[in-house]
Amino acid sequence: MTARLLDGQKLSVQLQAEIRPAVAAFTARVGQPPGLAIVLVGNDPASEVYVRNKVRSGQDVGFRVDLERLPATVTLTEVLDTVARLNADDRYDGILVQSPLPAALGRGAEQRVFDAIAVGKDVDGFSPESVGLLVQNRAAIAAGTPSGVIELLEREGIPIAGRHAVVIGRSDIVGKPMALLLLHRHATVTICHSKSVDLPALCRQADILVAAVGRAGLVTPDFVKPGATVIDVGINRVTDRAEAERVLGTGHPRFKVFEEKGSVLVGDVHPSVAEVAGALTPVPGGVGPLTIAMLMRNTLAAAGARHPA
Amino acid sequence: MTARLLDGQKLSVQLQAEIRPAVAAFTARVGQPPGLAIVLVGNDPASEVYVRNKVRSGQDVGFRVDLERLPATVTLTEVLDTVARLNADDRYDGILVQSPLPAALGRGAEQRVFDAIAVGKDVDGFSPESVGLLVQNRAAIAAGTPSGVIELLEREGIPIAGRHAVVIGRSDIVGKPMALLLLHRHATVTICHSKSVDLPALCRQADILVAAVGRAGLVTPDFVKPGATVIDVGINRVTDRAEAERVLGTGHPRFKVFEEKGSVLVGDVHPSVAEVAGALTPVPGGVGPLTIAMLMRNTLAAAGARHPA
Repeated sequence: MTARLLDGQKLSVQLQAEIRPAVAAFTARVGQPPGLAIVLVGNDPASEVYVRNKVRSGQDVGFRVDLERLPATVTLTEVLDTVARLNADDRYDGILVQSPLPAALGRGAEQRVFDAIAVGKDVDGFSPESVGLLVQNRAAIAAGTPSGVIELLEREGIPIAGRHAVVIGRSDIVGKPMALLLLHRHATVTICHSKSVDLPALCRQADILVAAVGRAGLVTPDFVKPGATVIDVGINRVTDRAEAERVLGTGHPRFKVFEEKGSVLVGDVHPSVAEVAGALTPVPGGVGPLTIAMLMRNTLAAAGARHPA
Repeated sequence: MTARLLDGQKLSVQLQAEIRPAVAAFTARVGQPPGLAIVLVGNDPASEVYVRNKVRSGQDVGFRVDLERLPATVTLTEVLDTVARLNADDRYDGILVQSPLPAALGRGAEQRVFDAIAVGKDVDGFSPESVGLLVQNRAAIAAGTPSGVIELLEREGIPIAGRHAVVIGRSDIVGKPMALLLLHRHATVTICHSKSVDLPALCRQADILVAAVGRAGLVTPDFVKPGATVIDVGINRVTDRAEAERVLGTGHPRFKVFEEKGSVLVGDVHPSVAEVAGALTPVPGGVGPLTIAMLMRNTLAAAGARHPA
């Protein structure tokens, strides 16, 4: 048995294509395109890649996208001032501040910055009010990664209602909103984490297993009920050869990537899970591109709410 | 085996006793007592009882408690105007609007009223921002019923971290915040509901089983792992004799209440569960009194936040 691969890259292209005419209609009606402001503090290499992809996706669907770069030496006050200016700027319908902020800004800085984004422009869905509306099942906007997973499941015809979904990981950005979105679609939901006892047995109950924990290759075949759908949210950079061997095996095509570059991106799910699962998202090319497509959809929704027809 | 009864009434008396000196200190420092405004629309008999208990508990700990009665014929605008007036009134640190509002106010009226309560005075914790802060584990105030359950578990020395908690019911007021509070205390958490398949088997996994579904006697011994802690949040009024017999049995002391009054309050948990569970909350006298005590604690916390030392 080999799992069907759930192609997030392909779906993200389709979602972008669906967004494009709506953006054109908005622009014609309002006289300006939906505007997205992206704040990047410092120059973390992974963040540079994410931000570049977000800028490109936004421009691709017809948004105005402006990148606000701030040096890594910036103060928290300056970041908050930037957010306040973008809140007040009518050209922007969505604001996102790329995570993580430099550690030098201190613990809690990131949440203070997220809190400062106007709720109507919070296209990442990280503010308390956005999160509360999500819990109450009346959110216009939900965090991109979990809503991308829902979109993928629905478009692939994978039933959710009445199924048992198990989410590994309880982050504010993925685990918790993922659990809530699955619950609102009538799944029985179990949330597991580092303190859970007998994680493989808990996960083997899952019809839908979502791994969002950030540990390379954690989910092995003994975690998976035969035929289950496995969603791999993890994006882990492996730089150690023994780790790359454990997670990929030397025969895996992506092990060649490691040999060429000295590092490779792998998910939380071990590739051998493909022999047990019914369907599986690859890393890369699974959930990642969907996160960005949903961010674009959120921005369009925020623009529509700010300029009702 | 007979379950240890978890006495919520007794703990609520203790909690009230702990709150009282803090209220006295607040009143001496600020020059006015913490103030709680309770809005009661119409005269639903159950709501009258709840409101009376809240007024009494508030006065008992030394609050100013004012009851705002509005006739059942009131408009939504008038309710919202009342909330706005209480928001602006410095004498009040907490505002609660007794649920349910009359059906004549229309669907969604209740949430609109909850949304209108100033976040700092939202001692029920029902506003989206309060809920979002709870999700992010940085809430000063959480809904009274689930936080009362946590208080009971902790005071009774029942471990939560690493245990499997199963919550039946996914309401905004109990099920979802209950799941989050347990998760933040490091339980593995499963949320079940009407669409869940094989509910007894799901529930038999629980070290801590919370029933919050509003169906009299739903949880029978086959739902319960021997020795598990069972928390009964349900308060169901049974007025049918056959139903009372099914849920209580004619030999149960509370069946006499039914025979005398023609109705009886029963929980979601069948009394025979006491033969299997390790610990169990009774109905009445379990979670109910704790909800009110936690509401008093929330009001004190809100008062403290409005008047920092």
